[in-house]
Amino acid sequence: MDWHMVWNDEKDCLDLLDQRFLPSREDWYQCVDTDSTIYALQTMVIRGAPAIGVTAAYGCYLAAKEAAPSGEGWREALLALLTKLENARPTAVNLAWGVARMRRAWQKQSELDNMGLRAMWLALAKEIHEEDKRFCRLLGKIGGEVIDDGDTVMTHCNAGALATSDYGTALGVIRGAWDAGKKNIKVIANETRPFLQGARLTSWELHKDGIPVKVACDNACALLMKRGEVDKVVVGADRIAANGDAANKIGTMGVAILAKHFGVPFYVAAPLSTIDRDTPTGDDIPIEDRTPREVTHVGETQIVPDGVEVYNLAFDPTPNELVAGIITEEGILYPPYSESIPAAFEKAGK
Amino acid sequence: MDWHMVWNDEKDCLDLLDQRFLPSREDWYQCVDTDSTIYALQTMVIRGAPAIGVTAAYGCYLAAKEAAPSGEGWREALLALLTKLENARPTAVNLAWGVARMRRAWQKQSELDNMGLRAMWLALAKEIHEEDKRFCRLLGKIGGEVIDDGDTVMTHCNAGALATSDYGTALGVIRGAWDAGKKNIKVIANETRPFLQGARLTSWELHKDGIPVKVACDNACALLMKRGEVDKVVVGADRIAANGDAANKIGTMGVAILAKHFGVPFYVAAPLSTIDRDTPTGDDIPIEDRTPREVTHVGETQIVPDGVEVYNLAFDPTPNELVAGIITEEGILYPPYSESIPAAFEKAGK
Repeated sequence: MDWHMVWNDEKDCLDLLDQRFLPSREDWYQCVDTDSTIYALQTMVIRGAPAIGVTAAYGCYLAAKEAAPSGEGWREALLALLTKLENARPTAVNLAWGVARMRRAWQKQSELDNMGLRAMWLALAKEIHEEDKRFCRLLGKIGGEVIDDGDTVMTHCNAGALATSDYGTALGVIRGAWDAGKKNIKVIANETRPFLQGARLTSWELHKDGIPVKVACDNACALLMKRGEVDKVVVGADRIAANGDAANKIGTMGVAILAKHFGVPFYVAAPLSTIDRDTPTGDDIPIEDRTPREVTHVGETQIVPDGVEVYNLAFDPTPNELVAGIITEEGILYPPYSESIPAAFEKAGK
Repeated sequence: MDWHMVWNDEKDCLDLLDQRFLPSREDWYQCVDTDSTIYALQTMVIRGAPAIGVTAAYGCYLAAKEAAPSGEGWREALLALLTKLENARPTAVNLAWGVARMRRAWQKQSELDNMGLRAMWLALAKEIHEEDKRFCRLLGKIGGEVIDDGDTVMTHCNAGALATSDYGTALGVIRGAWDAGKKNIKVIANETRPFLQGARLTSWELHKDGIPVKVACDNACALLMKRGEVDKVVVGADRIAANGDAANKIGTMGVAILAKHFGVPFYVAAPLSTIDRDTPTGDDIPIEDRTPREVTHVGETQIVPDGVEVYNLAFDPTPNELVAGIITEEGILYPPYSESIPAAFEKAGK
């Protein structure tokens, strides 16, 4: 079901359900070239590491089309566009991963003309799109095992269908448990300031699916855990370092520390494409600093006085010692991650 | 300077700067009787334990005036109004404390007629109001000692001038350090969802005073501490139990646990009137559950889909072992609090 990220063959563009306006409005946005794709990524029309990876793949195809009018110079024009595209956002490694995968396919068939490259790349982008759906289902089925029927599962941000092609990673694990017949699970969605992915997106997609979900302010996390209302935490990731440190939406590290304090198991769910073996530790993961307006305003309501500065750090790195397991399409990885991560890549033939 | 909570002799009412609309609008609200006072407390026109205590004292006077038309039955009518008033909100003990203090004064002069009681109570309410200002200044001066010049101090919610008669408790400590010449301090105001007291109020009043302040989403706390950007945490309290457990705005316990994790000293600043020796531990402090709308909407913007439930727990109890010191007008209390708290009350002759 391509319900929020749809390749439009007729118009030759990527149609995206615009996540900036959910749950109030269901507007659609079209990525028609490199700039409109970068805009969609930067303003978070689309977000979530796996969905960013798929968007990047289609973005490469759109860039190739955009480069065509450059005639003989189309390859140089395209390389410049790819560099712009892969630098659209710094933290989620799937952006660089998606572009790198497209680049490698091109290198293997460097003789292709522009039309040939476009045909090959569009097919590959669609394959990456389908693969993401498969991996999420698989990851969800595998991860569903760690959820007991009757559990209340806390999640932070949105690592759901909207953050992937479908089904989700963290929410894929929840859906995996649900689809395996564990119908007594409940979800606590942390609202996830400032962009409110939990309040706006996680609650919206789970509620549509009939999975019980309740939204909590991020501030309620400690009290809910102290009261024993949280059995497990499952979150997604934007980049996992080689040692298992996992960068995810700002606030995740705090949730992980509180989970440790209160003895609640904390899991990360992500495809192998989110593991960046070239990044040694979480401290090496670049943290995006976003526009102040996301903090100073909610809709048109101004909540911070004029002239007052704000922080808008978008991610934080959770240290591997706080992570009970990393749930991937190749199985659940356990500590020590410096051993289990290479083993998973080897198993996957990557 | 009575700049946000002003007794209006001419109109015989309490004028309050309406904190629901800051920083966008500076509207004023009038407490003219018991119901309008309860409304102001419940909707948070006025909030903050010490300010609630002062409002409660004036509210008793307004209740006495309201009871007068009941003729011979004015005492019974008044007692019913006082019960309503002291139950307006459950967590901040200063509400019950303020009403209890007024009740005790009445018991000592039970022969007073309605006019006599009103005269005595208005004078006492004004005294409590002035005393709160004095205590905040004193507490600030004492607490300012724990702040080093150059410190960045994180605070949660608003325990400032707006939460007291003036100067504040947690912000009183910051102002105390500032007024003692430590002009290189900086403040991080956690925005404090859902009511956004940090974003809206703490930043507003510190910025007015020229004290450097930067607003952070509550989610940024762990990352800021990990980066070494927080030297101390100072917060207020709504009720401190006999063992030193301190209930404060939801999220405070999480900040305290993170502070412990990262080795950042965590202080609570509150007058003795916030210490409730009849409440043994933090688990005995009632936690207010507020209207969902504070979570589902910001201004007119809806951020949670229709049909999705939310939590709106308003406070949490920080365990005493996470509290480096309780800063009061009678000095800084250190663990074990079961000894230092009674000693402070004895010293104060209470």
